[in-house]
Amino acid sequence: MEPHGLTMIFTGNGKGKTTAALGLAFRALGHGFPVCLIQFIKGSWKYGELESAKCFADLLDFHVMGRGFTWNSENLQEDIQAAREAWDFAAQTIRAGRHRLVILDELTYLIKYQMVSEEEILAVLRQKPEAMHLVITGRGASQGLIDFADLVTEMTEIKHPYKKGIKAQKGIEF
Amino acid sequence: MEPHGLTMIFTGNGKGKTTAALGLAFRALGHGFPVCLIQFIKGSWKYGELESAKCFADLLDFHVMGRGFTWNSENLQEDIQAAREAWDFAAQTIRAGRHRLVILDELTYLIKYQMVSEEEILAVLRQKPEAMHLVITGRGASQGLIDFADLVTEMTEIKHPYKKGIKAQKGIEF
Repeated sequence: MEPHGLTMIFTGNGKGKTTAALGLAFRALGHGFPVCLIQFIKGSWKYGELESAKCFADLLDFHVMGRGFTWNSENLQEDIQAAREAWDFAAQTIRAGRHRLVILDELTYLIKYQMVSEEEILAVLRQKPEAMHLVITGRGASQGLIDFADLVTEMTEIKHPYKKGIKAQKGIEF
Repeated sequence: MEPHGLTMIFTGNGKGKTTAALGLAFRALGHGFPVCLIQFIKGSWKYGELESAKCFADLLDFHVMGRGFTWNSENLQEDIQAAREAWDFAAQTIRAGRHRLVILDELTYLIKYQMVSEEEILAVLRQKPEAMHLVITGRGASQGLIDFADLVTEMTEIKHPYKKGIKAQKGIEF
């Protein structure tokens, strides 16, 4: 029997969402599974993981999408276009089925900011290859995503160092 | 100026605590930082990460402590003894200062089940080398740990696949 791939969401305002996705990538790579990481927002992947990824060059595809759109652009049309291209790439990757795990980092924002419709995204997710695992991260996951997912964890910030005036640290920064 | 090492806690009943710690290890290793992972409960580290760890053999120390005590033992004295030995090893590792990141996976249970006192653990944490980052995972982090930490994230389970009757999947299992 073909194994059932899970769709997992890490959402909420706390730290650790992208980091947990990275941990899953690390785990899956250890099993020799091909993994694809797609970053929808510029800057959420850091130097550390990009260097670590080299260790798994044959198995891990790393894609920074969106031409660095940050949702702060003054040109909304450009942002929408960039989000559209990023999503089209992700949809192709999911349909192609070459990876055992696909991480859609910060995907939730595409729906939240109405760059791509929830319905269009769900239509692709519903057709994912049976054995493929999906991980979606980002604040404010939409109800449709939550309903579709097998596992949803909300990360809640109880205490954060920046509030204590401590600057982000190289190698550990979230 | 010596960088300030952070103490981070991933707690709560949701999935992703150990996984987020793994992600931080992956990130720190990419910076070439020596990392030590200490597992206090048998079985929380899986085959996947053990294989991935080989990629970073020079930088990553992996320690499965406690002779596999699971808190289900019928011999409480043996469990307490195993917890004590595991903590002594962790304390030595912290004091030695050879690592830039030390992950104390499931440490919270030692306090919760009164295997080692919170005061004794805090005394060691307070003396950690300034540049060392600590990550503590586990449910029910004690108030003293939370007060000491710089960053605390609570993982809350919103939806879990086992409740839908889906079995754990190789390479992705939490």
